[in-house]
Amino acid sequence: MGIIVLSIAILPLLGVGGMQLFRAEVPGPVADKLKPRIAETAKILWQVYMLISGAETLLLMFGGMNLFEALCHTFGTMATGGFSTKNVSIGSYNKVYFDGVITIFMILAGTNFALHYQALTGNLRTFYRNSEFRFYGITLVGAMLLVTLVLRFQTYETLGTAFRYASFQVGSIMTTTGYTTADFEKWPSFVQYVLVLLMFIGGSAGSTGGGMKCMRILLLLKQGYRELFRLIHPHGVIPIRLGGKIVSEEVMQSVWGFFFLFILVFVLASVFMAFLGLDIISAFVSVAATINNIGPGLGVVGPMDNYRSIPFLGKWILTFCMLIGRLELYTVIILVVPEFWKR
Amino acid sequence: MGIIVLSIAILPLLGVGGMQLFRAEVPGPVADKLKPRIAETAKILWQVYMLISGAETLLLMFGGMNLFEALCHTFGTMATGGFSTKNVSIGSYNKVYFDGVITIFMILAGTNFALHYQALTGNLRTFYRNSEFRFYGITLVGAMLLVTLVLRFQTYETLGTAFRYASFQVGSIMTTTGYTTADFEKWPSFVQYVLVLLMFIGGSAGSTGGGMKCMRILLLLKQGYRELFRLIHPHGVIPIRLGGKIVSEEVMQSVWGFFFLFILVFVLASVFMAFLGLDIISAFVSVAATINNIGPGLGVVGPMDNYRSIPFLGKWILTFCMLIGRLELYTVIILVVPEFWKR
Repeated sequence: MGIIVLSIAILPLLGVGGMQLFRAEVPGPVADKLKPRIAETAKILWQVYMLISGAETLLLMFGGMNLFEALCHTFGTMATGGFSTKNVSIGSYNKVYFDGVITIFMILAGTNFALHYQALTGNLRTFYRNSEFRFYGITLVGAMLLVTLVLRFQTYETLGTAFRYASFQVGSIMTTTGYTTADFEKWPSFVQYVLVLLMFIGGSAGSTGGGMKCMRILLLLKQGYRELFRLIHPHGVIPIRLGGKIVSEEVMQSVWGFFFLFILVFVLASVFMAFLGLDIISAFVSVAATINNIGPGLGVVGPMDNYRSIPFLGKWILTFCMLIGRLELYTVIILVVPEFWKR
Repeated sequence: MGIIVLSIAILPLLGVGGMQLFRAEVPGPVADKLKPRIAETAKILWQVYMLISGAETLLLMFGGMNLFEALCHTFGTMATGGFSTKNVSIGSYNKVYFDGVITIFMILAGTNFALHYQALTGNLRTFYRNSEFRFYGITLVGAMLLVTLVLRFQTYETLGTAFRYASFQVGSIMTTTGYTTADFEKWPSFVQYVLVLLMFIGGSAGSTGGGMKCMRILLLLKQGYRELFRLIHPHGVIPIRLGGKIVSEEVMQSVWGFFFLFILVFVLASVFMAFLGLDIISAFVSVAATINNIGPGLGVVGPMDNYRSIPFLGKWILTFCMLIGRLELYTVIILVVPEFWKR
């Protein structure tokens, strides 16, 4: 919950004294801020959060979990944390009902909570109107269908089973929750690759999800397309729009900077993991699964393994990756810029 | 040679009618253009090219190659093509002398040819003064030393042998030549990972090398650092400089666009390769080795394999990657933008 309040309410308001924090979070739903005062916004978000959490807990209990299990799994879902009380995660229940309920609530947890608030106050079309949510939804559904098809032909015998496992795992990875119902290391390498890519996209801004965030990816795609357009109309002034509003060049630069620094930190960290002796896939995916706050990855940190085998120094690196990913990069990296300490 | 003339002489001059081509090549050494007219520039570059090629051919013959072998390997070096008359490439000679000579000429081929011209006219300090060359040189030497150290402790018994193979392979991969003297798939995975990353950096702008080019990576690093700086001094105007000159925001946007589109094409192509059934490493590296115009990769396209085992459709994808990488992305991608065909 702290992460949502941080990104929706606090960061955009620190405009004067903590401009650095504000700028780092610009791609968040600044313009959508719910109420002018932090305390009130936080209160509303808490209510939304508790309402959705309550619904999930009840639904899980309805399916047969006891209160403790239902609460634990609700907390793991809503915080996109992915901790289960079972060793083999949600897969240990092996119930379609739980898989379905948790898939839906993972997707809700990866959505901008400001949209949930608006939806709860009766404005249901807010989802459709929000361009980040459209991107999030299309990517999620597209990936689910694609993975379902591949799994149907190469792994599972019925379309229903394929869809059940595909939608759960795609939802879990893209929202950066990290629950598992299947050992996806045994799935075709194409599916594994798609899952790793989804890790980087991540949830929406203003959600509990990690990753680079859908809004940033969407803005980068728009800018990439604009560059192509500009080659043809070199003197055309083509502003980038999001939800009908023009995105300032300064915000775009901030998003570019984020993207490049993210890739840079990722590359350096994974090279270091390889230096410590991990094979290429484990080095690559262990960093992908931590910097994007997922949990399960591939190789030595696969869905049926844990991070115990990572060398001591590697655990420190990955811990740093989890922190840096969770706090939106800039807020941590800024600490290593000498200029910061001069003031 | 066509690539050098294209990037140094022709693209920057197409300013009016073919602005799109010019813009795509902006990070090239526009300001350093040697002579005002294309024909004259091309002539000078041809002379430089032939002079260096002649030197390499003579040195290779001096080491015992016959004229045919020497010429073939010179062409393979200077064009950073990497084709050898031997099946196991330069490794089949197993002579320190050849390894050394070819390493040096690969590095020369990955350098901006405008600098060679200036050096040949007596201005030797031009290398030191050029910020792209400094970046290129430091990365190259740094990677060579790092790989030498790791190979010394994990693969080879003497420092000399480790340096010989490390410097050759780092030089070959970073300049995107693709010659091999060792089966680097048997090297520690850390070294393999470093080599894959060097593929993406590539040679200098205005050289025959492929990859993203050192100049772009350097500009991205500068912009990344500027973003951090801006968080602390939000109202500071901090222009990005290269060689003392300010780089315009438009050029920076073009570089960002290039970087993102490059990553995007890379990701889509490698997902498709995984879809065709390649394992994750082969899918990833086969695209890395073609879009950056290297040749040898890892997995099924390792240094001791070839691309024969790639499925039919995959060969088409990789062919497209080679083309798009060689022609600096924009010039090919532009063809798929509907707007382009409206004029």
